[in-house]
Parts: sequence; structure tokens; C-alpha cells
Amino acid sequence: MDTDKKTIGVTLVSGGLDSLVALGIALKECDEVAALHATYGQRTADRERKAFEDICAHYDVSWAMVIDLGHIAKFGGSSLTDPDAEIPEGPIFQGIPNTYVPFRNTNILAAGVSWAEALGAEAVYIGVVEEDSSGYPDCRREFIQNFQRVVEEGTRPDTDIIIRVPIISLNKTEIIRLGAGLNAPFELTWSCYRNSGDIACGNCESCLLRLRAFRRAGIEDPLKYEELSEEAQKFIER
Amino acid sequence: MDTDKKTIGVTLVSGGLDSLVALGIALKECDEVAALHATYGQRTADRERKAFEDICAHYDVSWAMVIDLGHIAKFGGSSLTDPDAEIPEGPIFQGIPNTYVPFRNTNILAAGVSWAEALGAEAVYIGVVEEDSSGYPDCRREFIQNFQRVVEEGTRPDTDIIIRVPIISLNKTEIIRLGAGLNAPFELTWSCYRNSGDIACGNCESCLLRLRAFRRAGIEDPLKYEELSEEAQKFIER
Repeated sequence: MDTDKKTIGVTLVSGGLDSLVALGIALKECDEVAALHATYGQRTADRERKAFEDICAHYDVSWAMVIDLGHIAKFGGSSLTDPDAEIPEGPIFQGIPNTYVPFRNTNILAAGVSWAEALGAEAVYIGVVEEDSSGYPDCRREFIQNFQRVVEEGTRPDTDIIIRVPIISLNKTEIIRLGAGLNAPFELTWSCYRNSGDIACGNCESCLLRLRAFRRAGIEDPLKYEELSEEAQKFIER
Repeated sequence: MDTDKKTIGVTLVSGGLDSLVALGIALKECDEVAALHATYGQRTADRERKAFEDICAHYDVSWAMVIDLGHIAKFGGSSLTDPDAEIPEGPIFQGIPNTYVPFRNTNILAAGVSWAEALGAEAVYIGVVEEDSSGYPDCRREFIQNFQRVVEEGTRPDTDIIIRVPIISLNKTEIIRLGAGLNAPFELTWSCYRNSGDIACGNCESCLLRLRAFRRAGIEDPLKYEELSEEAQKFIER
């Protein structure tokens, strides 16, 4: 008779590449996984939600939940949640891009920890990436370390939840190689900031970083893309 | 011509006593106040929302927003959000009560900081109280200090938001005296964990702490209560 307690990991799954690989790692490290997806009024919300559902079905996760943080869009402050703002074309690596959503990751992490505490989970996995994340302040290691202390102070004394950031030190090329080794279903993901259909734009910052990383990893990106601009083509070949 | 930038304070307003007094302080300290109320599937949500709306109308705040964190109820883990669980009768001061909602304050604070960053606000006010809060881990000063570091790490470098906890060191009696000095409209608040109408139960932990504090402050509580049990009556006279 096996009386060992099953380990549970809550994983934040956006529908993109990075969180897919984080989920693949959580599934290896935990007995059961709860997948949490937040929709927050971003313009590609429906497409990302579909990616989340496809990924959860593929892995047959123990629990899957979609939460609505639509108030973050109402607050404003980001091109990603403002239907009138323009998503910048091409790579912009200076400073914080206008796609930054104020304090978004703290909102999503807080929900993940609430669920983890209610489930009795040991860990919350988040696929943040320090190097390749083009300057979002809430993707950095210092941010995660401080949030860990908030978790320790803000939950019951007998709750012991670790924030796991298994890909934080990797670049996107390494993440894709790692995901390929885990047989991660890249074809089910969505990264484009602009399009919501079957074909990604290929020209927004998120598409460009993804395309360049697949190329560098020597792996074919299974998604379909619109025709790339000359500048975009040059960028991904650099 | 006054070219000084107006100071803005986001205040988390539950509809209860403590956050009313925190709001009164924010209104004195800031030029403009944004009031944020979170509903999270708690059983008295409608009544608390009414209290929030009445308070915002009374003070004519610059912005008021209600956000839905209903997923916290779906996660479970608290009698406050579980319609089948029993709210304990009478005071229970040992350990963490079953009304604790896992990591609730972090979720609400995170939303407040998102709004503050989008508005360009300088502060987020929260009416947490260390001493009188019957053991909720996310009401303590260490928790707030760590959360402050998350705010510093997790927002734009040019964002400078302080988490203000103006009543954290006070007990409820002192809070009521402070609120009375600010002419805070106590009659618009709601504290009861059980009832949602015009009459509070008078016997749940929240009612008892409130009634005792008004009595100790020598101020009459303007709310109406059901008949108190003998035990309750003894408690508030202690």
C-alpha cells in the first residue's frame, strides 16, 4: 500500500512556448499538476485560451482552470490590453516595451499561490525568463525571490509553497531545445501579440524572438506565419 | 498657475470599518483617491459591495472600481467563500480561523498596485491590522514589508509606489476613535460575516470584535444587531 502523499504542482500556463516547457518540467517533477490560465483583456485572449485548453488536453492534467483578470485591462497602461494602442512592429530591446502590463505577473502568481494553498500543493511553476524577456521587470530573479518571501509570510505557517522558475536562466533557444527533449507539443502554442487566427503575424516582437530561437535551435517552428518583412527576415537570421 | 502634480492614492475598500478609516486617512493625505473593492465569492459579497458604493458616494472619490476575484472562491479553502461551511459562532482567538481566505490580500494588493501603476499613483492604502486581526498571516507587518519589495522589483523603474498601512499598529478601539475624529460614516459600513440584510448577526467573530471595540471606545455603533447570545454579551463587556 502506498501511503505517500502525492506531490502537487500548480503551473501557470499562458499558452506560449515558455510556460509550455515549464509545464513539461512540472509534469516530470510532480505527481499531479494543476494548470492555471489567466485571461486579462489582452487582444489575443481567445487564441491563447484555446492554446491553453489544447495543451491541457494533450497532457491530461489533473486540474485546469481559467481565471478572468479583466480588471487589469480596465486599469489600462499597456498596449497589450488597449484595443486602440499599436503593438510595435519589429524588435525593440531598449527599456520596457509598451506591451508591459502593469504588475501582471504578481496578479497571476498571487492567484496561483491561493490555488496552491487551497489544494495543498508544494510548488507554483512559472515560465518567466530573465534574459530573453525584453525588460519586463516582473520576470527577473530578484522579483521572484522577493515574491517567495511574500508567500512565506502571507500563507498559513504549515503551508510550504516554493515558486519554481525552471527556465529563468535559459534563453529561448535553450528553452526550445529543452522542450524538444521533453516532446513538448509546440504546435499547440501561441506566441503572437497581434493575430488570433491560425496564422501568426511573424513581425511583432514576440513572433520575431520565437522565430529566431527556433532557427538557432535548428528546429522547425510548426506554426504558420504571414510573410515576413525584410527587416524581420534579417532579424531572425542574425 | 499651479503646475504641481496631483498626488493620487489607491485605497482598498472592503466596506468594513478598518478600510473606511484607511480611506479617510488617504483622503487627507492625497489630492485624489481611487477606491478599489474586490468581490471574491464571499457569502456577504452583495452587502459589502453596497457598503463600498455608499462610502464612495459619501466621499465622492475620484475613481471607484469593483473587481471580481471570484476564482478565489472556486479554489476553496475558506469557510468565508464556501456556502456549505459554517462560520464559527463566538470569538476564536487560537491560530488561524477557518474564515482565512488563502493568500487573499496578496491578490487584492496586486490588483491595487496594477491600478496604481497605470494611474501614476504614489501609494496604495490598505487597512490591515496586526493586533486585532485574529491571526490572518497576510495582515502582518512582515508580510507588508516583503510585499513592498515585490512592488519595487516588479514595477517599472520610474514607478514609485508605497504600500501604506496607516492603522496596522492600532487596535479596533483606537481605529474607531481615529475614525470618529475623521467623521468617518460608520453607519455605511458592514462587518458581519453571516448576514447580508440590514441587521448584523451580532454573534460571529467579526461582529463581536466590532461591538466590543465600539463599547470600549465609548461610541455607539450605528448598525442594528440581532439579539446577542449570553456568551456574546459577556465577551463584548470584557
